[in-house]
Amino acid sequence: MARWEPNAQLRLVRAAIDLFTEQGYDSTTVAQIAERAGLTKTTFFRHFPGKREILFAGQEVHSRLFADGIAAAPDSAAPLEAVAMALDTATAAFTSEQRDFGPRLQAVIAANTDLQERAAFKAVRLAAAMTDALRKRGVPEPAAILAADLGVRAFGRAFDRWVEPSSQRSFTELAREELQELRAAALALG
Amino acid sequence: MARWEPNAQLRLVRAAIDLFTEQGYDSTTVAQIAERAGLTKTTFFRHFPGKREILFAGQEVHSRLFADGIAAAPDSAAPLEAVAMALDTATAAFTSEQRDFGPRLQAVIAANTDLQERAAFKAVRLAAAMTDALRKRGVPEPAAILAADLGVRAFGRAFDRWVEPSSQRSFTELAREELQELRAAALALG
Repeated sequence: MARWEPNAQLRLVRAAIDLFTEQGYDSTTVAQIAERAGLTKTTFFRHFPGKREILFAGQEVHSRLFADGIAAAPDSAAPLEAVAMALDTATAAFTSEQRDFGPRLQAVIAANTDLQERAAFKAVRLAAAMTDALRKRGVPEPAAILAADLGVRAFGRAFDRWVEPSSQRSFTELAREELQELRAAALALG
Repeated sequence: MARWEPNAQLRLVRAAIDLFTEQGYDSTTVAQIAERAGLTKTTFFRHFPGKREILFAGQEVHSRLFADGIAAAPDSAAPLEAVAMALDTATAAFTSEQRDFGPRLQAVIAANTDLQERAAFKAVRLAAAMTDALRKRGVPEPAAILAADLGVRAFGRAFDRWVEPSSQRSFTELAREELQELRAAALALG
């Protein structure tokens, strides 16, 4: 087997989601995932620390995209405008294949408490990355935390809508719309 | 050993937090916790499914108190007023011993990724309990989700302040104050 494996990470993700869907998450081993992907276990562990992390591979990338998007917003941007720009950056990085994976990914996570805990922690880390980036712009607490929470909620709600088979709209467009709705709800709190 | 063990659950929590602090979470076994509490492993497993759940024993109780507090709010109460009443109910149930445990509990969780994931999931469950209770009052989405998120944030931030050794104020008072600050930040989003 060649030392350089083209698209090894994506092949492992595809194989894992297929196997988790076919035979369940708990019944699937790293060896089976590697074999289905046509790769070795050694290659698997060069990309992921274990089978669980395949499902949360995006955490670091999304955290960085959120933070970079906020940092790149003009100085004049209000906190929620900076969050909207971060959502633009992060959602634009998603591929149509990630959209196709969506419903199966959600089904695997929904069936397993450990994965739900991991998903909750991913949301906490995304919110922390945005909160830090907003603090660096001089946004005080608790406004930075609140704006970051709205961003994470908008991201999650837009993802759920985007991966629906009947969905016709872009992830970016849906995330902008969800953020606007959350903002309107925040202003209506009274 | 008597079949009826007075305060068994609290004795197990005390023993667990002492042992986790003394020798670390990973090095502590259920048998050690039971022994320190003067109880058997069988008694332990009557109260908790495992050592990890000792640290999150409050999740079900707090979820119920939050939901009950929201349900008990008068029909005229706005969503965030209902959340404030839920915080009153939930925070009033905390004892001074829980306050004393606070810093050690936080240190144990901060040192362990698995416990941080579990804590994130607890926050998700508390928010879901409040969101459901708000929906039952007719609060639409995403206002129900937003109000619940503010409640969970206020609860967590107030807890952190309450357990500081120098703190002089009640948990309830701090939670009310944090909720007010988050509300003000929401209205200032513009």
